[in-house]
Amino acid sequence: MTDHTVITDDLVEQLTQRIRVLEDKEALSSLMNRYCRTADENDWEGWSRCFTENADFDFGPFGQHHGREEIREVCEAAEAPYLDKQHSMTNMQFEVDGDTARGTAYLWFAGVPDPLNPLHHYDIGGPYRWEFQRTDEGWLLSRMNLRIVWTQGDADASVFD
Amino acid sequence: MTDHTVITDDLVEQLTQRIRVLEDKEALSSLMNRYCRTADENDWEGWSRCFTENADFDFGPFGQHHGREEIREVCEAAEAPYLDKQHSMTNMQFEVDGDTARGTAYLWFAGVPDPLNPLHHYDIGGPYRWEFQRTDEGWLLSRMNLRIVWTQGDADASVFD
Amino acid sequence: MTDHTVITDDLVEQLTQRIRVLEDKEALSSLMNRYCRTADENDWEGWSRCFTENADFDFGPFGQHHGREEIREVCEAAEAPYLDKQHSMTNMQFEVDGDTARGTAYLWFAGVPDPLNPLHHYDIGGPYRWEFQRTDEGWLLSRMNLRIVWTQGDADASVFD
Repeated sequence: MTDHTVITDDLVEQLTQRIRVLEDKEALSSLMNRYCRTADENDWEGWSRCFTENADFDFGPFGQHHGREEIREVCEAAEAPYLDKQHSMTNMQFEVDGDTARGTAYLWFAGVPDPLNPLHHYDIGGPYRWEFQRTDEGWLLSRMNLRIVWTQGDADASVFD
Repeated sequence: MTDHTVITDDLVEQLTQRIRVLEDKEALSSLMNRYCRTADENDWEGWSRCFTENADFDFGPFGQHHGREEIREVCEAAEAPYLDKQHSMTNMQFEVDGDTARGTAYLWFAGVPDPLNPLHHYDIGGPYRWEFQRTDEGWLLSRMNLRIVWTQGDADASVFD
Repeated sequence: MTDHTVITDDLVEQLTQRIRVLEDKEALSSLMNRYCRTADENDWEGWSRCFTENADFDFGPFGQHHGREEIREVCEAAEAPYLDKQHSMTNMQFEVDGDTARGTAYLWFAGVPDPLNPLHHYDIGGPYRWEFQRTDEGWLLSRMNLRIVWTQGDADASVFD
């Protein structure tokens, strides 16, 4: 039998907040999936819009960079030799704190210089550390750090030196 | 202090809808995990039930196929040389629109002809594009597209030519 | 227009339960991400706290082991030759049943003996089977089973023999 106790605002506000945290984590995962897909489709304009205007970028082989435009220029140029590529991310993990968030994941990247020769590629992997900000355009990356743990393939196909 | 404003149907319906979207994405991820696991366990009957009866399948090396039964026959035969295998998927992303949905992910596949020699395998990777329908049996795949970005291993162990 | 029907406890309890299941799956995913990250950072104390005190561990090359401390000793010693490493997990899937849960996933592991030579590493992959218990410290692993499907790299860098 249903109990006709009146439900208070308080309880519903708690449920709403719990749903919001789950939605935020889903939105952060969705942002990083877009980050991978736009890079792999050479949509560098779409890729750059995953970052805040003042984002910081730190990846050893590509250097430290600041600002959406500079980050785009550096990465688009660096990855240009790969006409096809795959940015696989695993173990995405997010901690949301109001309008900021932190995250971690692993990268498994394959870069293919010649799409007609998919057997020839250079791969790297390692851990990401991210920071995010909630903005009018949704969650965006404000800090990106990547470290290389392993590499694979012919070093002459590497852009990571 | 709790506020004893009476909560309306409207607000609860909105919360219910937000939970449903999160559950749908979880169910779609679960479907694709089942797709991988059944294929890797050679449970092709279970694997075929991940598709709608009228599903479309498009993967270059295996061709274009229509219908659950045809898709099963083609894939079961094509992958038969791999006595052990691993369909790893990363970056699963789903967009739900009522009783249909779309999704993307990356594949990292390893096919092992001889389980006693796990060092000898042939691997491929690339992006998936999916469409789904909500049915009486839950969410099912209605369209599957896979493109190869990279390959790896001894080409004589490849079934993807 | 909003409908001022009074919402019952019953409906709110159902919504709360649905949110809880989604939160549980997120917490289990979070636990396994912590499992990977602590191992890769050589935080074996943190890693061991992912297991219940009486957990069972079964991974062919490392053997069968019982109890948090024994599992830690065996794994910490076995993986010591890898000064850098990456435990990537894909296809995490969880089924929650009250205060217990089951899960599956795939491993993609890279072990690097010398961080100055990231091109030289030994990799393995295969399916996990997990059992979990809800405890005062949150969800913990009570049973871990891993099977190797494929290996990769120079066998002289393998700790899995």
